[in-house]
Amino acid sequence: MKEYYPNIPKIEYEGPASKNILAFKHYNKDEKVMGKRMSEHLKFAFAFWHGMNYDGTDMFGGGTYDRTFGQKESREKAKARINAAFELMQKTGFEYFCFHDVDICEPSANLAELKTNLLYITDYIKEHMAKTGIKLAWGTANLFGAARYQHGAATSPYVESYAAAACQVKNALDATIKMGGIGYTFWGGREGYDTLLNTNMEFELDNLARFYRMVIDYGRSNGFKGTFYIEPKPKEPTMHQYDFDVSTSIAFIQKYGFESDIKLNIEGNHASLAGHTFEHEIRVARINGLLGSIDANHAETLVGWDTDEFPKDVKSTALVMYEILKNNGLQYGVINFDSKLRRPSSDELDNAIGFIVGMDTFALGLKLAAKIIEDGRIDEFVRNRYSGFNAGIGEKIVKGETNLEELEEYALSLEEKRLPSGRQEYLNGIINELMFS
Amino acid sequence: MKEYYPNIPKIEYEGPASKNILAFKHYNKDEKVMGKRMSEHLKFAFAFWHGMNYDGTDMFGGGTYDRTFGQKESREKAKARINAAFELMQKTGFEYFCFHDVDICEPSANLAELKTNLLYITDYIKEHMAKTGIKLAWGTANLFGAARYQHGAATSPYVESYAAAACQVKNALDATIKMGGIGYTFWGGREGYDTLLNTNMEFELDNLARFYRMVIDYGRSNGFKGTFYIEPKPKEPTMHQYDFDVSTSIAFIQKYGFESDIKLNIEGNHASLAGHTFEHEIRVARINGLLGSIDANHAETLVGWDTDEFPKDVKSTALVMYEILKNNGLQYGVINFDSKLRRPSSDELDNAIGFIVGMDTFALGLKLAAKIIEDGRIDEFVRNRYSGFNAGIGEKIVKGETNLEELEEYALSLEEKRLPSGRQEYLNGIINELMFS
Amino acid sequence: MKEYYPNIPKIEYEGPASKNILAFKHYNKDEKVMGKRMSEHLKFAFAFWHGMNYDGTDMFGGGTYDRTFGQKESREKAKARINAAFELMQKTGFEYFCFHDVDICEPSANLAELKTNLLYITDYIKEHMAKTGIKLAWGTANLFGAARYQHGAATSPYVESYAAAACQVKNALDATIKMGGIGYTFWGGREGYDTLLNTNMEFELDNLARFYRMVIDYGRSNGFKGTFYIEPKPKEPTMHQYDFDVSTSIAFIQKYGFESDIKLNIEGNHASLAGHTFEHEIRVARINGLLGSIDANHAETLVGWDTDEFPKDVKSTALVMYEILKNNGLQYGVINFDSKLRRPSSDELDNAIGFIVGMDTFALGLKLAAKIIEDGRIDEFVRNRYSGFNAGIGEKIVKGETNLEELEEYALSLEEKRLPSGRQEYLNGIINELMFS
Amino acid sequence: MKEYYPNIPKIEYEGPASKNILAFKHYNKDEKVMGKRMSEHLKFAFAFWHGMNYDGTDMFGGGTYDRTFGQKESREKAKARINAAFELMQKTGFEYFCFHDVDICEPSANLAELKTNLLYITDYIKEHMAKTGIKLAWGTANLFGAARYQHGAATSPYVESYAAAACQVKNALDATIKMGGIGYTFWGGREGYDTLLNTNMEFELDNLARFYRMVIDYGRSNGFKGTFYIEPKPKEPTMHQYDFDVSTSIAFIQKYGFESDIKLNIEGNHASLAGHTFEHEIRVARINGLLGSIDANHAETLVGWDTDEFPKDVKSTALVMYEILKNNGLQYGVINFDSKLRRPSSDELDNAIGFIVGMDTFALGLKLAAKIIEDGRIDEFVRNRYSGFNAGIGEKIVKGETNLEELEEYALSLEEKRLPSGRQEYLNGIINELMFS
Repeated sequence: MKEYYPNIPKIEYEGPASKNILAFKHYNKDEKVMGKRMSEHLKFAFAFWHGMNYDGTDMFGGGTYDRTFGQKESREKAKARINAAFELMQKTGFEYFCFHDVDICEPSANLAELKTNLLYITDYIKEHMAKTGIKLAWGTANLFGAARYQHGAATSPYVESYAAAACQVKNALDATIKMGGIGYTFWGGREGYDTLLNTNMEFELDNLARFYRMVIDYGRSNGFKGTFYIEPKPKEPTMHQYDFDVSTSIAFIQKYGFESDIKLNIEGNHASLAGHTFEHEIRVARINGLLGSIDANHAETLVGWDTDEFPKDVKSTALVMYEILKNNGLQYGVINFDSKLRRPSSDELDNAIGFIVGMDTFALGLKLAAKIIEDGRIDEFVRNRYSGFNAGIGEKIVKGETNLEELEEYALSLEEKRLPSGRQEYLNGIINELMFS
Repeated sequence: MKEYYPNIPKIEYEGPASKNILAFKHYNKDEKVMGKRMSEHLKFAFAFWHGMNYDGTDMFGGGTYDRTFGQKESREKAKARINAAFELMQKTGFEYFCFHDVDICEPSANLAELKTNLLYITDYIKEHMAKTGIKLAWGTANLFGAARYQHGAATSPYVESYAAAACQVKNALDATIKMGGIGYTFWGGREGYDTLLNTNMEFELDNLARFYRMVIDYGRSNGFKGTFYIEPKPKEPTMHQYDFDVSTSIAFIQKYGFESDIKLNIEGNHASLAGHTFEHEIRVARINGLLGSIDANHAETLVGWDTDEFPKDVKSTALVMYEILKNNGLQYGVINFDSKLRRPSSDELDNAIGFIVGMDTFALGLKLAAKIIEDGRIDEFVRNRYSGFNAGIGEKIVKGETNLEELEEYALSLEEKRLPSGRQEYLNGIINELMFS
Repeated sequence: MKEYYPNIPKIEYEGPASKNILAFKHYNKDEKVMGKRMSEHLKFAFAFWHGMNYDGTDMFGGGTYDRTFGQKESREKAKARINAAFELMQKTGFEYFCFHDVDICEPSANLAELKTNLLYITDYIKEHMAKTGIKLAWGTANLFGAARYQHGAATSPYVESYAAAACQVKNALDATIKMGGIGYTFWGGREGYDTLLNTNMEFELDNLARFYRMVIDYGRSNGFKGTFYIEPKPKEPTMHQYDFDVSTSIAFIQKYGFESDIKLNIEGNHASLAGHTFEHEIRVARINGLLGSIDANHAETLVGWDTDEFPKDVKSTALVMYEILKNNGLQYGVINFDSKLRRPSSDELDNAIGFIVGMDTFALGLKLAAKIIEDGRIDEFVRNRYSGFNAGIGEKIVKGETNLEELEEYALSLEEKRLPSGRQEYLNGIINELMFS
Repeated sequence: MKEYYPNIPKIEYEGPASKNILAFKHYNKDEKVMGKRMSEHLKFAFAFWHGMNYDGTDMFGGGTYDRTFGQKESREKAKARINAAFELMQKTGFEYFCFHDVDICEPSANLAELKTNLLYITDYIKEHMAKTGIKLAWGTANLFGAARYQHGAATSPYVESYAAAACQVKNALDATIKMGGIGYTFWGGREGYDTLLNTNMEFELDNLARFYRMVIDYGRSNGFKGTFYIEPKPKEPTMHQYDFDVSTSIAFIQKYGFESDIKLNIEGNHASLAGHTFEHEIRVARINGLLGSIDANHAETLVGWDTDEFPKDVKSTALVMYEILKNNGLQYGVINFDSKLRRPSSDELDNAIGFIVGMDTFALGLKLAAKIIEDGRIDEFVRNRYSGFNAGIGEKIVKGETNLEELEEYALSLEEKRLPSGRQEYLNGIINELMFS
């Protein structure tokens, strides 16, 4: 079989001292961290969207990297893309992948063609999966690219858009089931609005819930046992996206009763755009039992659009992995690398480099998170901080056995005194201490 | 009785042609708009926080306006403040007021003193209320100013803070009941976190819900029939406030089952800080049946902190009033003017001017909103846009009588065609047309 | 000749009471405002970039509006585009246009072809200009779309990019001269950096200055008497654009001595992205004698990318026109409409509607600005505010005839007293008063 | 002499393995890095503003930490503060300090008192300086706190404010000279505007330049040989500060001809608020020969106000120190720690912890910056990237020996080919590699 990346060897772990641009310095998949192999903690998934299809185009210029695989648009090109993807996944050590329907097929003139193309290509992918052992993390349908979704898909004011979305999701879900995916993602690319002046928000949200209900019913009755995910994003492309952030998505899930079927797929850059840290969003999902999967992409925090960078900030990945360790791992999902190369990173090697740097950043983050937990000072500090609620009036508060009158009496009985410090500087110092010792 | 604002006369309506700095040009309280008096649509409330107490201090300098009422700190000053406030309310035509416990009292050395002071001053206020007919909109307790709340109040890790908060809320709620308030506001000034490193978010939120439950139980069993409001704000003073925005607050209300007691008090500037328009936040609350009350303050959108400006943007107030008209009015609350003068607006007249400009802006907004509805083009555009869901497969979607298979079949049967325009430029043009004709 | 927009008639002024979607309600070109015709104040220019070429594509999906003019890519299509543009300009009343080299030609395989194509099409355009009387405002070269500019053009680390940029600018400037343009714009689409890690900022800026010097020398020696403009933008597509804002551009102009040749082309949305108001940027340019031309586009202030909306906010256009009136008009430029339709505004009529709404917004702004000046209260307030500098020690300060010792003595001799108010609320109230009376 | 911080010992370097909360793990002042002692690279300065005076007050509540030094407001308290400050500086190893006039004195009823108090306290401080060897970095006058500066100081519309500012600066500069300061800082706390509606920007900026000119003249004629610094900040407290960022300040310096006297004092958090990285601002100053001094404070990037946090991000300090190493050190200034504790960090130890964590973060940053330079790959990558300009047509461009015609000819002669990658992911990977090996 043709080799698409002859200059990229199988990426091996060479340790922190290596200067080899094409080697892992920290991601050592079989190394044990807190009793589990790194690759179990870090279930990295490869995404076709930015990983294979995006060519560097932005709003101000065309592509800069070659993503043609030596072919013109055709089924052959689609197959070449699959070949190249599996080659790259094997070389960089991915065990999972994710897909949008349109990203794995050749261009389709209409929905019927897309269905046919998807059936064909998923057969083809399954062969690769069988050969390589690489598994499907999740699938999704692109409900935002085509002009038919210019006003949204499941929140479109137009029945034909809604039905088209249903058609695409049905087939993408079928494809997901066929390839044994562990999840199915809803990213409401244009589910939102550009102006309230032309929008019936209430109707749109009700319609979206009806849509999800139909999809879940269809999936469950066709043997899909995986998790559905909503992927929050606050803005872009629309001025307001309905799945703004984790809390907004939870409000939706609760209102329409989707708790047993839908969890969240949380992306770092989307968190930033909503004004949150990545770890904040994961924490909110976690304490609500709704942590599904994550997208590894990080933000360029000084700009206001989605840059989807490869992760490079170890403190951030450490705080993310800390949340995941506290969750006993990502039980319903993966760490999806839907990161994209900077447009000027136009060389064949860059994609591999991006994955290496990103995976090493997550490996460093995992090890640091484990150190934080094993060190124990931070967790103990937090535990002690709330210990007043373990007994006496504090315990009664927690058990719901007191009331305002009793609390007033208690408060009036106390002499006011200075509270202990929150020690934020110290706690940040511990992180640095563990990072650099 | 001493006159505190001798240079401020009773503010009268003089019509759009007036150049009188101390007259209403648009707010004509008895004028009918859509069949109701302006003052019924626009239930303006006066707030002590910025209206009487704030003296222009900011993080870089001390006060610039005289808010001493000719007194040193004392009960006499507290009473003078009440006198001045009622004088100003009468002169500027407020029919409601709002208060924080500490803003209406002299400084209290401890919680017991605060209780005593509050009992005294509310008797004093009731006399003014009786004389003037001015009513209490809502009360609240300041749970963020004192050092005892440095880590939060109902989300503090310290039982003494929690109990102190309970004590203050009990007394502030008692005061609210005593003065016949129609609502009670929770603004979680420091209910949030500065760093996740020292925070048990799950515990804090559960504790907050327990707190609200106790407050509601206490209120209901003591005859309070009004509405409790959560007032969302995303950030400031903490790095993350738990009541981030309307959707986040709805998720909280749903999770802990507060739908029948708690609604939302929505502030324009808080909306901006969360990345939303004011009208967005109101719409979200409205379609969830949770619109309680609003705070009129607008943002300086190019800066990242709460500037709490007097409203001056008529398009914004029009879109706000449009939502309120569609809600059949603010049935559970008021339009609270917790706006603050710019620090350099240091003159006695400025507060009156701020209210005049703000009220006129709301009056213009109300009239424009009524025009939008009466004109009908925008509403009709929206109605038509979704009309495909009134029959056929669209109707089946809405009624929940179809499924993915049927929708796929339908979608595959259609020929793809261009969708109608969203006409955003046109709809904005209509607003301008109605504003300037 | 074929009519491209049969559904768009010649747009006429029908006055504020008109409900005709395709009529001006406020822009009445021959109406006099402060002694000059509206069209003299408002030298609107049409831009090919968003006006003819942009098809609704965004980072998440393909085009939604038909900008093919019934043709496949070819010279015929390029000519059809010119025809359509002049038809639309005539119908909507534009007297000027602006162009990027690549926007008016068919696609060119290389620089030589582009040169040839540009020569051809400018001949063709000149015929239209002669027939219609429509004039060229300014030209520019697209130095950001092609992959050859992936690292910048005149700031690229690669000589071939730099030379290509020189080639394109030479030809675009020749075209500008040929068509009698009054200006030539530098918009440094990718003149900036994505990461300092790979950037020699000093070298790049020096090189950029050398580039401008060569262009100016070439232009001047080839008969170009017009103004060169730098168009500031802070970010997007690069993480940091060198021409960040007006002040940054002024620092550059001063450092390299371009004061006599380069002025600024200021866009409203770029101002917002840099954290400024549109009027701020114009003021800064104006007081430095560097106000060149403006781009009318407004921002959606709650998002962090360039949305380039059609103007719709009358207060903003009033404050812009106030600056322009104080500048005795835009003596070196025009008001360029490089606004783009929202992606869902996919209908043929929308472009005309966008222009109508935008021009009416500027007409309203002009009239309001004139009212502000004629009313005089704001200008007088400002004049009075600084009147202390007209005599005595104040005058000595202004004349540079005092020193710290004398000022200390003066300061120590004064009794401290309260300063007058800044009256911000009042001044905003005047604006509203003038807007709605 | 009374010990103010009995629980804070002299902070010693104990190395990376230490778990001692009150020890340096990385800042080892006599350790050599690139041939110079750490303390020569890192000339840390202590600031009274946040370090001694700020008590945790914010816009929503009063102080949380004890900054009374056991005294009521009085000269005794001012002296106690000096004692405590020098104790803390010695214990934490500061060799420099900075001051605002009002921060080192007792409260003064008027300018005359301030002058007297300043004369007294500087005598007192000089004794401490003599005893401890601690030196003055720079002084400044607080021209923003008092109501007299509510409209600005040197940009105030009121002569009395301007003269008061002159008086304060004269005395603060005298104090700086008396104590041998190496610099004097202008931070224009309220030099800016809240609304253009009441502002004559041109007059204010001209007046500001006149002010600086008088100050420089006074300083120079009174023996001050140090550097004056402008400290840029974009917003807060005013809506727009005139010294927006480094580039804006450079435009001002150039326009008014201050290049030989004024350099820049750059703060990390101010950079963020202006939309820049800290290293960006330093780079811009550096390549313009205007790097003066820095303020170490970092931002909480998800919020929109100045949080002035103690530095904790090693990558950021490394990129800062990289710029400083490339500048051959901070030749005209220091690294000023004007960081402030979080409000809940209310304990006596926290200030010491903040300094330790901050200094360790800078020490790690310095070592990493040195590693980056010694490793050489990044510098070499950059050098190579521009190497095309070292010969041939590239060299002619740099030497100014070519023109558009020649460049066009060159460009047309080339075959278009793919450019090398910018390798951003790789370069970030190198940073991580060096940080964690």
